[in-house]
Amino acid sequence: MQNGGLEQLMNNPMLRQMAENFGRGGGMPDINALMQNPQMRHADIGLIGLAVMGQNLILNMNDHGYTVAAYNRTTSKVDQFLENEAKGTKVVGAHSVEEFVALLKRPRKVIILVKAGAAVDAFIEQLLPHLEKGDIIIDGGNSHYPDSIRRTKELEERGLLFVGSGVSGGEEGARYGPSLMPGGSPAAWPHIKEIFQAIAAKSDGEPCCDWVGEGGAGHYVKMVHNGIEYGDMQLIAEAYSILKVGLGLDELEISKIFAEWNKGVLDSFLIEITRDVLAYKDTDGAPIVPKILDSAGQKGTGKWTAMNALDLGQPVTLIGEAVFARCLSSLREERLRAAKVLKGPDAPQFSGDRDQFVKDLEQALYASKIVSYAQGFMLMREAAKEYNWHLNKGSIALMWRGGCIIRSVFLKDITNAFRTNPDLENLLLDQFFVDAIQTAQAGWRRVISQAIAWGIPTPAFSSALAFYDGFRSEVVPANLIQAQRDYFGAHTFRVVPGKESESLPLGQDIHINWTGHGGSVSASTYQA
Amino acid sequence: MQNGGLEQLMNNPMLRQMAENFGRGGGMPDINALMQNPQMRHADIGLIGLAVMGQNLILNMNDHGYTVAAYNRTTSKVDQFLENEAKGTKVVGAHSVEEFVALLKRPRKVIILVKAGAAVDAFIEQLLPHLEKGDIIIDGGNSHYPDSIRRTKELEERGLLFVGSGVSGGEEGARYGPSLMPGGSPAAWPHIKEIFQAIAAKSDGEPCCDWVGEGGAGHYVKMVHNGIEYGDMQLIAEAYSILKVGLGLDELEISKIFAEWNKGVLDSFLIEITRDVLAYKDTDGAPIVPKILDSAGQKGTGKWTAMNALDLGQPVTLIGEAVFARCLSSLREERLRAAKVLKGPDAPQFSGDRDQFVKDLEQALYASKIVSYAQGFMLMREAAKEYNWHLNKGSIALMWRGGCIIRSVFLKDITNAFRTNPDLENLLLDQFFVDAIQTAQAGWRRVISQAIAWGIPTPAFSSALAFYDGFRSEVVPANLIQAQRDYFGAHTFRVVPGKESESLPLGQDIHINWTGHGGSVSASTYQA
Repeated sequence: MQNGGLEQLMNNPMLRQMAENFGRGGGMPDINALMQNPQMRHADIGLIGLAVMGQNLILNMNDHGYTVAAYNRTTSKVDQFLENEAKGTKVVGAHSVEEFVALLKRPRKVIILVKAGAAVDAFIEQLLPHLEKGDIIIDGGNSHYPDSIRRTKELEERGLLFVGSGVSGGEEGARYGPSLMPGGSPAAWPHIKEIFQAIAAKSDGEPCCDWVGEGGAGHYVKMVHNGIEYGDMQLIAEAYSILKVGLGLDELEISKIFAEWNKGVLDSFLIEITRDVLAYKDTDGAPIVPKILDSAGQKGTGKWTAMNALDLGQPVTLIGEAVFARCLSSLREERLRAAKVLKGPDAPQFSGDRDQFVKDLEQALYASKIVSYAQGFMLMREAAKEYNWHLNKGSIALMWRGGCIIRSVFLKDITNAFRTNPDLENLLLDQFFVDAIQTAQAGWRRVISQAIAWGIPTPAFSSALAFYDGFRSEVVPANLIQAQRDYFGAHTFRVVPGKESESLPLGQDIHINWTGHGGSVSASTYQA
Repeated sequence: MQNGGLEQLMNNPMLRQMAENFGRGGGMPDINALMQNPQMRHADIGLIGLAVMGQNLILNMNDHGYTVAAYNRTTSKVDQFLENEAKGTKVVGAHSVEEFVALLKRPRKVIILVKAGAAVDAFIEQLLPHLEKGDIIIDGGNSHYPDSIRRTKELEERGLLFVGSGVSGGEEGARYGPSLMPGGSPAAWPHIKEIFQAIAAKSDGEPCCDWVGEGGAGHYVKMVHNGIEYGDMQLIAEAYSILKVGLGLDELEISKIFAEWNKGVLDSFLIEITRDVLAYKDTDGAPIVPKILDSAGQKGTGKWTAMNALDLGQPVTLIGEAVFARCLSSLREERLRAAKVLKGPDAPQFSGDRDQFVKDLEQALYASKIVSYAQGFMLMREAAKEYNWHLNKGSIALMWRGGCIIRSVFLKDITNAFRTNPDLENLLLDQFFVDAIQTAQAGWRRVISQAIAWGIPTPAFSSALAFYDGFRSEVVPANLIQAQRDYFGAHTFRVVPGKESESLPLGQDIHINWTGHGGSVSASTYQA
């Protein structure tokens, strides 16, 4: 260790005092001996990365009685933090990785909260020479789950433990109770459980944090959470559009409708902030939302969720449509040109029962949301199989009940469904949701039909209903598709059980010579 | 060269004769000297991979007067081919890669038609030691375009030329005229143009083959072709489902409707084979389609197209829904369980004008198809930007007009649109299609509303209409989404031009402190 590092270390008043207590006064203490001393290691956990999220998470841990060591690459930020936000707390700062690690109790627990990607790997590399077997590195950033799978494997091979934890709730959540979704090395969980559950949001007294699963499971579940968030936001946007364009209501009137909805089945953070956002007035007294450019960003986790759904062959249509709707929104210049030449139906008129229609719309949103969550859980079910994770679905719903963006009353019903029946195949088969959709569906269909007649786009509502009608179909027209594929590409098909015959044997790949000419060879390498 | 190779070479009667002509009779000729002799290299092109597609492509080239050298890893297949399908042709067989290459005129043109992936690279590796600067390797398999980008680069670095060519049309197409979509090293095109355009399908006298673009452009365009094919098939399946479940028609009646449709705007290969497939009877005299298992395969190019669309941020919703519909179809066991508990509307009744409804349905299919192709061309537009390709859209439409699975009269209108205006921004802005959708849209809306009331899933019809209504929207509700994102994540937003003010400056990222508390820091690394 260089002397510069030692001097930096000595800037920490507590360390200086400890060093003096060691009775080596009169000269600089032997830093190596000092660092070997167990009393040096008094911090319960360390955190690297002092952006707003990191600072707030540290203050949250401090509030719950934990001593946190803080480090940042630009070390001036450490001092600023200690002198301002962290003033009067037990937080200890470090000015080098070595010093930082030396402050931590064993097994060391280090949270990295930096930009996802190369920066995470860089800090892991910097930490490695200073860590020992059994120490735990926790990545709390927005990492893509394949990176967390890789990091778990790499660190376990070196005798360390890795946790990739989804963290949701933004700045507020980090400060006062986020939703935490940790996964990675299962052996790490007993060491971090207490602190993670202490700082997490609570829902009905239960912490919104539990062990998610092996490898990249934590970041995976966070990714699906974000995908579902995309879907929820798109559904709300479509409801807003129908109320504004279809019924001709203004933002304040619509805000009041969302306020009402927030007292019922839709009660949730996103409905609540929609109420507030719509009521928010610009300095001129007019609602601000119509002044905001209608081009939504979409890169990141929503896209990852939809791509993963395609890859795993799971029909997560609503999130897909929500991501694509953002893509379409960002083609604004092209839309403006299209609006000039492409006609729709006549301007919306509504002569029916407005209150009933608003109730229908609430049910349309609710039913679509049920479908979206069912799709999300189908995706996680498949991911658990694909990546060999043991996912606890009830716990996942619980983790999302508080602290995070999609927190809602609704998630309590999902928790209940999976607690009642941990082997529940599909959320749509739980009796509570069977009944809920049954109640909702007439209004749901009326709303979409009305929007279609008005020319108001409802990609998420429509895809949810199409999924529902497809999912409950004993027969879908894929038989025709299979026939076509066998016709032009000899892709073969199978017979419906119960309809087999000598010419159509059960459980076998069958090819028909549809045209009476051409070969009888089945395609093996050629596709379409 | 080993003597075994030499003996194999001498199994070829033409070579033996050539060797004898060389006047070295009385002993085995010097193979190396033989191979140096220009007269040895008499084949116009070579093809590796004698599965059905490869065999048919060879016979097609032979029909057009080209001498083709044939090689296959399992060399017994070469002999079988020469003794059977290729008997009496000018095709020459080779039993080793060396021998194969020795047969080819310079610059050598080698088509590889093997399973996509490692097998292609393996054959390239085997060929390399025997090729010279300027020789051309053509991959005619179903390769993923990133592989073709890589192979173009690698081979050009070695002084060779690479072509990745989409080949569509199945066995029939390969034999009598496929759609060919070559891309890669532009310098290769003049050498292969004549033969490629000779063997390709013709549409109104024009070959369905033209140079697509650089690098992976050929396989990329083939991928989009296949994605569009997924979409077309799903639209047809939905129409079939509406006619069967909604109107209660049987397969023969529906076949007649498709026969009618095949005389109008929908005239195409897929409508034609749907007519035939639906009329096809099993040995017991009953239509076969209802006996076919309704689980459609989906891995491959359709999925790639949708994933690429997400990656490039282009709203290719219809193909996405078509792929997801196949995913849902393959969850058949789960659907059967769901069908028992999830209710829909009452059994369909129809009391309106049936002929009019069938006309509406034809228009719904047509309008949805226009949207799907517009989305496909939007994707290719973006890909050209992203990968720096010069794509000729009119030529692409022409290539798809004949030989391939999506061939149709409709593609002639697309060709016309891009020929009239090569800079056409979007297919939906071409006057022909503006008028076509305008004519179609009332029926399109009626059909979807009716299907929704009946509980018949129409994910592709619905997503197409939602896209149309979104695309022609001056304002979409993404402004609300941007407000929400700024509220919970400080993601910032921009102001609509014309609505700027001192507090909402134009062209700047704006953050509002929505709640009156919390920080004013914009999120930079934290997402959702």
